[in-house]
Parts: sequence; structure tokens; C-alpha cells
Amino acid sequence: MKFTIQRDQLIDSLQHVMKAISPRVAIPILTGIKIEATKEGIKLTGSDSDISIESFIPVEEDGLVYVENIEPGAIVVQAKYFPDIIRKLPLKTIEIQTDDNYQMTILSGGSEFHLNGQDAEEYPHLPVLHTDNSFEIKHDLLKEMIKQTVFAVSTVETRPILTGVNMKVIDGKLNFVATDSHRLASRVLPLSEEQKHVNFESIVVPGKSLAELNKIIEENDETVTMSVSDNQILFQTKNIYFLSRLLDGNYPETDRLIPDQSKTVVKTKTKALLQAIDRASLLAKENRNNVVKLETKDQHLEISSNTPEVGQVTEDVVTESTEGESLKISFSAKYMIDALRIIEEEYVSIYFTGAMRPFVIRPDQNDQILQLILPVRTY
Amino acid sequence: MKFTIQRDQLIDSLQHVMKAISPRVAIPILTGIKIEATKEGIKLTGSDSDISIESFIPVEEDGLVYVENIEPGAIVVQAKYFPDIIRKLPLKTIEIQTDDNYQMTILSGGSEFHLNGQDAEEYPHLPVLHTDNSFEIKHDLLKEMIKQTVFAVSTVETRPILTGVNMKVIDGKLNFVATDSHRLASRVLPLSEEQKHVNFESIVVPGKSLAELNKIIEENDETVTMSVSDNQILFQTKNIYFLSRLLDGNYPETDRLIPDQSKTVVKTKTKALLQAIDRASLLAKENRNNVVKLETKDQHLEISSNTPEVGQVTEDVVTESTEGESLKISFSAKYMIDALRIIEEEYVSIYFTGAMRPFVIRPDQNDQILQLILPVRTY
Repeated sequence: MKFTIQRDQLIDSLQHVMKAISPRVAIPILTGIKIEATKEGIKLTGSDSDISIESFIPVEEDGLVYVENIEPGAIVVQAKYFPDIIRKLPLKTIEIQTDDNYQMTILSGGSEFHLNGQDAEEYPHLPVLHTDNSFEIKHDLLKEMIKQTVFAVSTVETRPILTGVNMKVIDGKLNFVATDSHRLASRVLPLSEEQKHVNFESIVVPGKSLAELNKIIEENDETVTMSVSDNQILFQTKNIYFLSRLLDGNYPETDRLIPDQSKTVVKTKTKALLQAIDRASLLAKENRNNVVKLETKDQHLEISSNTPEVGQVTEDVVTESTEGESLKISFSAKYMIDALRIIEEEYVSIYFTGAMRPFVIRPDQNDQILQLILPVRTY
Repeated sequence: MKFTIQRDQLIDSLQHVMKAISPRVAIPILTGIKIEATKEGIKLTGSDSDISIESFIPVEEDGLVYVENIEPGAIVVQAKYFPDIIRKLPLKTIEIQTDDNYQMTILSGGSEFHLNGQDAEEYPHLPVLHTDNSFEIKHDLLKEMIKQTVFAVSTVETRPILTGVNMKVIDGKLNFVATDSHRLASRVLPLSEEQKHVNFESIVVPGKSLAELNKIIEENDETVTMSVSDNQILFQTKNIYFLSRLLDGNYPETDRLIPDQSKTVVKTKTKALLQAIDRASLLAKENRNNVVKLETKDQHLEISSNTPEVGQVTEDVVTESTEGESLKISFSAKYMIDALRIIEEEYVSIYFTGAMRPFVIRPDQNDQILQLILPVRTY
């Protein structure tokens, strides 16, 4: 194998595949990066067997030459060293070649590195996804849907299915739901006519996979193709191929958790509420669960927290409207902050059904986002 | 105590005194911040008994009013909560008052905090420094001298005196020296006629104190007054009073460590050499001590490192001049990188006296900086 490559393109691609590589992995060769040179360009692969990422650097793109002097071949090199070396090389252009003993030579300016590699034949073959079950979605929309739900997945393995985001298509809408059983985040996206043929019965994608995917997908208006098979999901962009396993098991029926009526409805500025709860939580950190209290008072909310050893705080938030029964309720400040942070609308409405029932948070004039939080008993 | 204060000024001052506060300190009240209000302004104090910092917020500065409605008094509040609360308050103006039970009330917009405080009378009195032994130095110069030496102090407590920077005035020059016995960094500053009266026999200031001081002193052309007593040093700016204990004991005579002749002299570009050593060290990290080899080759340097399990690297650096005996030497890449990083001059000269002797690094056309590194035996 031999090629001459532009350093910046190689650095970008390495950053992508490194997201899938873990130093703690059962199959030792997966601590390496697979590098394949063909006449079309250079393909890098990283995998921890849960997530596999391929990133492709074409010979030429938009009239710019990225790779030259290619002699096809493949090798696996240590991910611990290779990216740092490439990043620090002195010139913009790098020559890479390998010999029959799986030694890689890297040349750039006065630098000459020789790295021990491994036979690329020993690298596991990535599963090829055979499915017609796929549709396209814009980068920005997919990133938004991930951001609005993935924070609510469970981080403990007691119910592994809850560490993933549930994706399904119902009534021509794509639905992302995440819950850790104390709170729930949901986002709905109406599909276009071309997208509606897709058949996502109900799959669960690991939260970790979506978080890594979100880092790799650039914010632009290109499209990602999502394809689903029995046990895997593939996200494909122009030069990136991101494959994740799906979680096994049945995702709980979350629809019936969402109350369909409310006794108290409060509408208020999102940012003012977020900041008041953030401040009230400052003194609640010594508490179990970081709990704050909320009380409706005419057209105001009073948010408070009291830790006898430290002190107490009362926050007064003026609401746009407060309707229905008066209410005292306690909840985790962290869950409320997480929920409010992903809401970009200026106003938010909160629908309460009593101090012991879950309550619902929705941005004003946007029925695609719904958040639910279970209260904590303190009153 | 009562006052109304501009949030931004209070945040700045809190950041300064927090540098002296440690949650792990023998005297519990020192985990707090002392706040004193007088008709002149607000004084904050933080201390871990090694370092004490006072920061003063005047009632008015440059025509801007910072503090109003002052009722004099003092209190100590928990450093764990107070700065976070202040930083997150909703308005630019904050009202603070205390009652007879050492309760502090903080008001800003809809926020009302009540914090448990402690009697300021129980806070230790800072020692007052009685000395005429003081002189003034520009902020920038002091920061430069700290940066050029403090990285070389010892971080282990086996010889506590080496954890400090040795300061002394000899022949009308102020001298900063730090060494961990494997390398040495020295900076000399010729004093002006007004400064020469100062009598620093040979004091040792903890490296930690200087590192914190460097963070607090702003980069501008104002002056710091340095004053020294038997066991303390005071750095005083317009609104900051930074007091540190001195280290007890005799600092080793470092002058005789510095070779007064050399057998090989290499002059090269500082940045090119730094980057070549940085790259060569990438494969040396598995080694004990991160050791690289340097070999003179005509008007080139060859820097190399070899870790059989990983690979090898050879860096070729073109020198401006290489004079004297040819040389092969090994040394810690980390020490060399530390030494080259603080040199801003384009060219650097290295004076070798054989493979087993310490070598000296000096920036070109600047005899105020000298660095010394002990080689490692590998050849």
C-alpha cells in the first residue's frame, strides 16, 4: 500500500473513526484503525463491535485533490499513536507506505516514522446491511431529534432497554422517545410523502451510539440515509458509514404514561424559569436528588430550596398565565433543567395534574416536543 | 453589614481570593471567604494559611460607582456556595446584608438567598508585614520571570526546598532560579538604580504561590510592589494584597552546576526543534522518562526514539550552525519541551560538554535566560 495524502483531510477522517474506537475492547485488533487504499480513495474504519464507523477520503472532491500516487492495499495501525503522529507532522502533505512485514512508514518534511501494523485480513468484516427499509433525513433535523431526546436515556444497566432511544413510525410520523423511568423526552416529526413508506416497527438505538453520531454529523442541510435491519441501524452520509447495533427487547409502552388532562397550567418564559431553577438548585446539591419545590402564587411561581446546614433560597418567577388549581410540588432540579435546556422557544407551558402525578412540559406553539417529569414526595 | 454592589466587580474579586481557598484545610473557618464592608469599599479575604489573598473593591474607580448604601460590618460565608450564587444572579446589581445571627441575605431581581455565615472575629488575622525591604516591578516582567522558571520546581516533597523558586539580588541583578535536580531554569533581570537598594539575600517562594499569583496578576504595565520579611513575601497591586509564606532552609548553590565551557555548540530554530522533539516523544511515552536521542550530523541534528513494540521515529532538523565535537546524547523529551516552550526568540543555542554532562540552552541574543538539563545514560 502506498499513497500521498493531504494532512487535514486525514485528520478529519481520523476524528470520525476514533469515535468508535475504545482502548478497552475484547477483540485486540479493534484497538487499531483499518486503513484501505483503493483507486477511488482511502477508507478508514474504527469499531468497538457495538458501533462501527467508516470514513472515506475520495481521491478528489470539488476539484481539490486529496490523495495521489495510490498503490492499493490495506493495514491496521494502533489508534493510540497514529492520530497524534498525523496531527503533529510538519507538512500539509504526508506520504504513507507499508511493506510486507506490516510496517508502515510515514514521511513528512524531516519526519520519518516507522510503525508496527497488523494484517488487515485479521480485522473483522463489518456486517453488510441488506434492507430496503430506509429513508432520508436532513442532517440538522436528525441532530435536533437526537439532542432533544438522548439526554433522558437511562445511564444504569438495570433495565438495559432504557439506555436506548426508541424510534418508531406511527401515523406517518417519526417518533423518538427516551426515558429513564423518572422522566421522559419525546420528539415527533411528521414525515413527507416520500418518507412515509418506511417501516420502523419500534427499534431501540443505544443512547451512546446516537451521542457519538451527533458529534460526527456536521450541521448543514445535506441528508443522512437511515436504514434498519433486524438488529442494526445504518446512518450514511456522503463519506461516512455509521453502523450501530440495536438493543434487544421490548421498549415499554410510554404513551399511557402521558396524562391526557391537567388541573393546573402555567405558561412562562423558558429562560427565566430555567435560570431560577438553576439558582434554586445551588443550595439543593447536598440534598438527595437535588430537589426543589415549586408553588403557584397568583400569577407567580415560587421556587425554593432549603438545606438547613447551608441556607435557603426563594426564586420568584412572573408567569404569563397560571390557570386551574393552586399547586405545591417538588421535583429534581436536574431533570427540569435538562428538559428546559433543549427548548428553544421563548415560552413554555407546564401541565400539572396534582402534586403526586407526572407533569408535562411543552414549548409554546410547538407540539412536536413533549417532556414528562415525575415529582418527588416532600410535602 | 449592608451594601449594594455591581455583580461583575464582585465576581472578579471572588475569583482572585478563591485562588487561596482550599476545601481541605486544617482550620475550618478558612474554607470560607471573609467579607468586610467599610466606607471605602468591600474587602474580600481568602487564605489557606500558606497563601493569603485580599481583594479590594473600591466604592468608586475611574468615575464608575461599584458599591453603594454601605453599612460597615463583616462576615465569613462558605466559599463552596457564595461565588456560584453571585455568578448566577439575574441582575447586574446585588444587595447584600447580614443580621445579628450571622445570616447573610442576598437579593437580586426575583432571587432571595439566605446563607448561614460565621462571625468574622473568628477569622485568623493576617500577619502584617513590617519591612522596608521592598521594590516595584512591572506586572508583565514579574509574570514573565515566573513563567520562565516556575515550571522547573520539584513536584515531590523529598527535598521541600526544591518545590520553591529561589529569588536573590546579586550584583544589581534580580535572579529567579528553579530546579528539581534533573533540570534547572534561571532568569536574570538587571535592576534599575531605584531598585538596587533592595536586599533579597536568598529567599525561596513556594512554586504553588507563584503559579497562583501569575493567574491573578493581569497583563498590563502597572506595577507590583514586592516586600520581603523573614518568613513571608508580599505582592501588592492597586487592589490586591497577595501574601505567601517562604520556604525554610538553604537553597542549593546552583551556580557551580552550570558548565563554563562547551565542546559542541548547536544553533537552530527554536520552534522547529521543539516540534521535532515533541513528535519524537510520541513513541517514547512507553519508555521510562520519555527519553529521546539526539545526534549531530554535519549541519543537521537527528532526533530519534525507538520503542520496539510500537515503532521508531527519526526527525531531521537543519541547524544554523553546528560547531565542535560530534555528539550523541539522550535526554528527557519533556524537560527539553518545557525549556524550549518558554523561549520566544526565533533561534536557540545549545551548549554541550559531552554525552554525560549537563547541557545549557539559551535563547539567541538574550543572556537573561538560561536552562540546564541533565542527560540520561542510554548510549
